[in-house]
Amino acid sequence: MNEIKLFCPASVANVSCGFDILGICLENVGDEMIIRKTNNPGVKITKIKGDNLPFENKKNVAGISAMTLVKEKNIPFGFEIEIYKGIASGSGIGSSAASSAGAVFGINKLLGSPFTKNELIKFAMEGEKLASGTLHADNVAPIILGGFTLIRCSKTLDIINLPTPKDLFITIVHPKIELKTSDSRSVLKQKVPLQKTIQQSANLASLVSGLYTNDYKLISRSLVDVIIEPSRSALIPAFDELKYAAKKKGSLGSGISGSGPSMFALSKGEKIAKNVSAEMGKVLEPLDVEYETFISKINTEGIKIIS
Amino acid sequence: MNEIKLFCPASVANVSCGFDILGICLENVGDEMIIRKTNNPGVKITKIKGDNLPFENKKNVAGISAMTLVKEKNIPFGFEIEIYKGIASGSGIGSSAASSAGAVFGINKLLGSPFTKNELIKFAMEGEKLASGTLHADNVAPIILGGFTLIRCSKTLDIINLPTPKDLFITIVHPKIELKTSDSRSVLKQKVPLQKTIQQSANLASLVSGLYTNDYKLISRSLVDVIIEPSRSALIPAFDELKYAAKKKGSLGSGISGSGPSMFALSKGEKIAKNVSAEMGKVLEPLDVEYETFISKINTEGIKIIS
Repeated sequence: MNEIKLFCPASVANVSCGFDILGICLENVGDEMIIRKTNNPGVKITKIKGDNLPFENKKNVAGISAMTLVKEKNIPFGFEIEIYKGIASGSGIGSSAASSAGAVFGINKLLGSPFTKNELIKFAMEGEKLASGTLHADNVAPIILGGFTLIRCSKTLDIINLPTPKDLFITIVHPKIELKTSDSRSVLKQKVPLQKTIQQSANLASLVSGLYTNDYKLISRSLVDVIIEPSRSALIPAFDELKYAAKKKGSLGSGISGSGPSMFALSKGEKIAKNVSAEMGKVLEPLDVEYETFISKINTEGIKIIS
Repeated sequence: MNEIKLFCPASVANVSCGFDILGICLENVGDEMIIRKTNNPGVKITKIKGDNLPFENKKNVAGISAMTLVKEKNIPFGFEIEIYKGIASGSGIGSSAASSAGAVFGINKLLGSPFTKNELIKFAMEGEKLASGTLHADNVAPIILGGFTLIRCSKTLDIINLPTPKDLFITIVHPKIELKTSDSRSVLKQKVPLQKTIQQSANLASLVSGLYTNDYKLISRSLVDVIIEPSRSALIPAFDELKYAAKKKGSLGSGISGSGPSMFALSKGEKIAKNVSAEMGKVLEPLDVEYETFISKINTEGIKIIS
């Protein structure tokens, strides 16, 4: 195999009570990438469509992730990368992670899969570090492993693939505003009241139980974030109204995707997910905010090989 | 049925990363109770063996829990309660909860089970309130439901019965020192750094995953309490040495049972649980501290009817 074409899905990190822990992989929202072997050693990004991103390896998340992988092996050839962005950067649904994960996934395939999935996550986290300043795995892990992923420890990469109830659908509403990562970070309170810590833990543990038992009602009761959302919601236009709209139309729960500005809502069944999307759209329609919405199944496979 | 004899098991609350959330029911450590119908309406405690406890309903956890239940129904007869304590009060393995839960469980049976298990938990929590000042369910829930219980919300009594991997054994080491609840409480820090909140949540969620998948290694990695234990461990004699002893002999993890002074260790298989018990005993042997140890399977049934 000398060339591979990939679908690199979007993902939702910081899922409600699972801030910095829980991520979800999406099915039909994502980028495409082509990676091909070349005679020139190293990595070269040759094409970027759909976004205005740097071609220099050190400044591009795909480039830096790919370089980190390539340095681990003595490879007598090199790789060209073409990136076709479908995920807007800064949208909060893992745009940088899709590129980072896609690059290392594709090169690994072209090399005959010498690296484990956990090693690929480690390489892709270098791209995340370039994008956000921190080595976090809660977008790249679901993209590479698929489904719901639980990061027990991001230092040791102790990551658990949770089961996905088959009727779960996700609605994404992306208000096209610029939200600086530094702002999303600066609003976070660094100390949490003990009672809220307990509540949040209990919700996350119950959510995990609900995923194992296909208990949609329990999933719904558990999708409550008492720590991060109260601080960050002020940065999202019409947050309370969007959340109310999702609830009104029967979603199981909703929250901020990643560090925003996108919001996600989980629903049982595609029909509810569509109604939720329409109702959330109605909230943004009269405002002076451009937006887009997506509906997706949960992608239990992760990155897909197109050809 | 006019009389019922019960085995009311001990329990471990505050299981490691599950402070105020996770409880476990023990198999072969507990009290016995006899409850019988009498012609005199109301509740009367007629015998208490094994401990020096008040007979007056309002001052006895079994009495107050039983009264709370009885007041809910118009019952033309009454109940006598005999309590044979096997669990030392103040040991940290749910002595008050066993009596509270036993009383309401037995009376409910004699009434033909008009109340649900969740209602029984609610009544038994009145005993817990008398004993500790707060309405907490993390001992009475595992006693009534059996196995591992997860309290998502103690206000709405949203309680989840988690699966119990069949080779799990528990070691209890009870150093016979007096530990005041007020001291156990006063050492707790009321604000938790955000990073520790995340770590604790991730561990609890992973522990739940390990219980569903019988993943003993994951259970072991997840049995880490970064919030409560660092504050409370100073109240337990030779805590670090006891924890080291448990680890050295292959336990999956250990921690403070309830608010102490007992410690628990979870192990895969009875043999390891016994070795852990012996090694922890060796730590306390040279100290001027009386102690007792128990080994138990996890009791997935809860309170048992003896006759």
